[in-house]
Amino acid sequence: MDKVIRINVGADGGPTVTEETLGKYAGFGGRALTSAVVCGEVPPTCHPLGPENKLVIAPGLVSGSAASTSGRLSVGCKSPLTGGIKEANAGGQAAQYLGRLGIAAIVIEGEHSGSDLYKITINIDGVKVETDNSLAMLPNYDLCEKLKDVHGDGVAVISIGPAGEMKMSNSTIAVTDPEFRPTRHAGRGGVGAVMGSKGVKAIIVDPGGTKIRKPVNPEKFKAANRTFVEGLKQHGVTGQGLPTYGTNVLTNVLNEAGGYPTYNFKEGRYEGAADLSGETQATLEDERGGAGSSTHGCHRGCGIQCSGTFYDKDGNFVTKQPEYETVWAHGGNCGIRDLDVVAKLDFMDDNYGFDTIEMGVTIGVAMDAGVIEFGDAEAAVRLVEEAGKGTPLGRIIGAGAATAARCFGIERAPVVKGQAMPAYDPRAVKGIGVTYATSTQGADHTAGYAVAPNILKVGGDIDPLSHEGQADISRNLQIATAALDSTGFCLFVAFAILDQQETFDAMVETINGMLGTELTGESVVELGKAVLTMEREFNAAAGFTKEHDRLPSYFSREPLKPHGVVFDVPAEELDSVYAF
Amino acid sequence: MDKVIRINVGADGGPTVTEETLGKYAGFGGRALTSAVVCGEVPPTCHPLGPENKLVIAPGLVSGSAASTSGRLSVGCKSPLTGGIKEANAGGQAAQYLGRLGIAAIVIEGEHSGSDLYKITINIDGVKVETDNSLAMLPNYDLCEKLKDVHGDGVAVISIGPAGEMKMSNSTIAVTDPEFRPTRHAGRGGVGAVMGSKGVKAIIVDPGGTKIRKPVNPEKFKAANRTFVEGLKQHGVTGQGLPTYGTNVLTNVLNEAGGYPTYNFKEGRYEGAADLSGETQATLEDERGGAGSSTHGCHRGCGIQCSGTFYDKDGNFVTKQPEYETVWAHGGNCGIRDLDVVAKLDFMDDNYGFDTIEMGVTIGVAMDAGVIEFGDAEAAVRLVEEAGKGTPLGRIIGAGAATAARCFGIERAPVVKGQAMPAYDPRAVKGIGVTYATSTQGADHTAGYAVAPNILKVGGDIDPLSHEGQADISRNLQIATAALDSTGFCLFVAFAILDQQETFDAMVETINGMLGTELTGESVVELGKAVLTMEREFNAAAGFTKEHDRLPSYFSREPLKPHGVVFDVPAEELDSVYAF
Repeated sequence: MDKVIRINVGADGGPTVTEETLGKYAGFGGRALTSAVVCGEVPPTCHPLGPENKLVIAPGLVSGSAASTSGRLSVGCKSPLTGGIKEANAGGQAAQYLGRLGIAAIVIEGEHSGSDLYKITINIDGVKVETDNSLAMLPNYDLCEKLKDVHGDGVAVISIGPAGEMKMSNSTIAVTDPEFRPTRHAGRGGVGAVMGSKGVKAIIVDPGGTKIRKPVNPEKFKAANRTFVEGLKQHGVTGQGLPTYGTNVLTNVLNEAGGYPTYNFKEGRYEGAADLSGETQATLEDERGGAGSSTHGCHRGCGIQCSGTFYDKDGNFVTKQPEYETVWAHGGNCGIRDLDVVAKLDFMDDNYGFDTIEMGVTIGVAMDAGVIEFGDAEAAVRLVEEAGKGTPLGRIIGAGAATAARCFGIERAPVVKGQAMPAYDPRAVKGIGVTYATSTQGADHTAGYAVAPNILKVGGDIDPLSHEGQADISRNLQIATAALDSTGFCLFVAFAILDQQETFDAMVETINGMLGTELTGESVVELGKAVLTMEREFNAAAGFTKEHDRLPSYFSREPLKPHGVVFDVPAEELDSVYAF
Repeated sequence: MDKVIRINVGADGGPTVTEETLGKYAGFGGRALTSAVVCGEVPPTCHPLGPENKLVIAPGLVSGSAASTSGRLSVGCKSPLTGGIKEANAGGQAAQYLGRLGIAAIVIEGEHSGSDLYKITINIDGVKVETDNSLAMLPNYDLCEKLKDVHGDGVAVISIGPAGEMKMSNSTIAVTDPEFRPTRHAGRGGVGAVMGSKGVKAIIVDPGGTKIRKPVNPEKFKAANRTFVEGLKQHGVTGQGLPTYGTNVLTNVLNEAGGYPTYNFKEGRYEGAADLSGETQATLEDERGGAGSSTHGCHRGCGIQCSGTFYDKDGNFVTKQPEYETVWAHGGNCGIRDLDVVAKLDFMDDNYGFDTIEMGVTIGVAMDAGVIEFGDAEAAVRLVEEAGKGTPLGRIIGAGAATAARCFGIERAPVVKGQAMPAYDPRAVKGIGVTYATSTQGADHTAGYAVAPNILKVGGDIDPLSHEGQADISRNLQIATAALDSTGFCLFVAFAILDQQETFDAMVETINGMLGTELTGESVVELGKAVLTMEREFNAAAGFTKEHDRLPSYFSREPLKPHGVVFDVPAEELDSVYAF
């Protein structure tokens, strides 16, 4: 798997396709590869929507193999939302299929002029770029329906909705799941707008005629993978919590902890949380039934099965089972305590191509500014609709929380580096606050999930309300995450590998068995550090300083109920995160 | 003149007023004083609309005296538009009256909660703060009409329009002229939003019972001031060009030079320029007549008289004589070749409280994005109206060019540090490009008017199309400007003092005669350097780096007609500007 497909949309006479090998990028996959290409080839001060930016799509190192839970896809570019480097990560079928096709990365580059929309088809015979303006402004679900007629549903689709076409700062790249639904998204940082700026509407990845990738050392691989899977099953979070309730198991947990951001981060506990919890959702699923309503994998070969399908009361498909962060963003953060509304909003976000976190936080900002009322579900639906249509109000909403706050003239934008904070209040979960502040990605829980040791007591036990020790855990988790994001393994394996040394070792041996490498725990850490270092250098060259590694000042000024805490991690501790 | 009035809008029980002397700020006036207070008291990373920001309003060192042309008012704060320090500078009567009242600065500080609007009255008896919600959302002209009933027209009003109340990033602070019209604006950087965030709608400055400030050394003052005035009269620009045609004398000059940004900075020469020129405007004024249609001072005591009054074809007042940058912003930049439309837009901007440069560039961006068509005057009027009303589209427009480009998903935002470029294309007038890039204020022609040596051949003769020598002239002009902005003298005296050593000496001696100081040419330069240094330190602490001292990359990529030039001043030359 060492092919790099370059598509130049700016060539005279229309897009060209060239194929090369990884070359200087050899040994890199996933996030390590997308970030290496962006750092190596994109001028840090360029405009994210301009011709100098590139969109890099890369499966992980072991994607496309039989390695359990390894179907994650990395998408990299300079972010239209943050102005810094971006790696957004999605499940779905595409990573596995790209791996089977031997493709380590797709790089979309050059200056797209005019308004033609391209459809790219990748199969065992090669790569074809066609103009297809009939796809213009199709939402993702409609797009997939239309593509199914031509390509069947045995392919994977990587696509943008209207948000990406309109080059909105909040716009995702969607990836189809095993049911050929566009439910998995490289969500954060506006990566869809970069794909839109290149005129690419959809990439069809057809695995026809390919086989699962063969391990270099089959016996080692098989044994290690077995131990790895057993470890996942054995751990409470990956073996029970996530498959049973999905990520939404966290609603009650965070609400109990007083770290559930409510009413645009005004309070830390929501009186309606029970109506939104994973437990309530599971009961609803049991009542309503339906295929894959729980315990479903976002890609084949997943050993955790945290996802699911949400049906309405009449048993009709609504959307995938909404993730915790989505339920929070559209739920408690907006004062909406209705899972059916949340599910509807989740579908709309997926369909138009909006990141649910950024969208929910932006609606919360609009509510805080008095544009609509907290708790007004109909108005929230209308806002997403306007965003999807690109009305003037929709343009504000689609630009994300920071821009919406600027347009509406309010201070309270819960963002770092222009990106909205997810579902954990940094005042009551200070470890995640350190990650928000210092991550190369802007506010992002997945960049270093300190919620684990702060709240779940996984991978350590650090008091979430104290600033002590938070920089250390955030640093270690950011390093581990950067490495993991490069392998193709789902971030959720982290729960098991952080707590169970033998599961971690088995994961490393699975990679070694697959690739014939001699990685050790130490070299995985070195990989993580290398990825973070190059990302941080890119950001510094783009103009970021330690002053950007801070939360908005109101988090240090406004105490959060119920604990009455402010964010008080000292600047020097924040600045110590990258001292490695 | 050493009183500092502090108004704390966050005190329990309503706003409080305290009076102190300059203390550690002694010797500072105008921009030096506003920047010193902002640098000394505002946390650089605070939110511009949050409680930590302060609004500082200061007349110049010799304002309120008989020193010719010295009625400029400085307004300072952290800028909602740029996120850096801001000094915006206006004419009008307020500076003279504040000087006569002995007030060196008004500092508005604290956290305004609730939605009450304050009216502040300052007279010889003291300062009064009253709640007056009847003023809410009044445009500046209507506000002045209403205030006239209570206070007469012998006072000066410093006010915000609806834009400032809505905390728009493009919002000005208006100052009334000698005819009690709100035509003079501290325009740039969104200073109106900061006043709005403090809940202050209007400051009435009543000079009743005060006298003109007495010089410490009357004879020296009188003699120096006379020489200074003679110098202004004698120089071609201050003695003839500006009084005859106003600043709009520049339309033909810049168009000839190929540096007149047309169609959102796509071309450097406009086919409709003749319809917009100062010469055409002067002919129109002659035809239409009317009091003060030309050769009018924005404040009493002005020795240049560059302003005027614009009447419609029936002789009705429309607006002040639009400045060159306004005529350009709404004219050539938008493809609108009609002075009557430009005048109407100028009035609307003044009335709602929008900076004409930022507004015109934002409309150009909207045109470039296809929201409305280039040349569509009616649509341009509608956009300003929507902005003034705060409709969703208006919220985008009122947020300025950078945010509008983000909302509309286009790259071509001609901004530096988030602030729109004025009426000189940096590719064809490279000296002003260096100022745009490196100024502490964001793109700003007044920060170091290199147009003078590049195009007008005043203060030197430097080829505008070559990068050579531009960093040096920009540096020297930025230093001189920072000093001049601290004195209260209008920046336009620079034309005369740059070319005529005896006029410069006379200006310095006028200050010395007035204040009893022993300033020299050298100490004026040192003052300018000190002001720039502290401003730059503030910006660095707010997170600005040399990467922010750059033009958007498309200025280095897209050649500008007719000369086919790009912006090619090397980074190291830009970085040399502050090497002093």
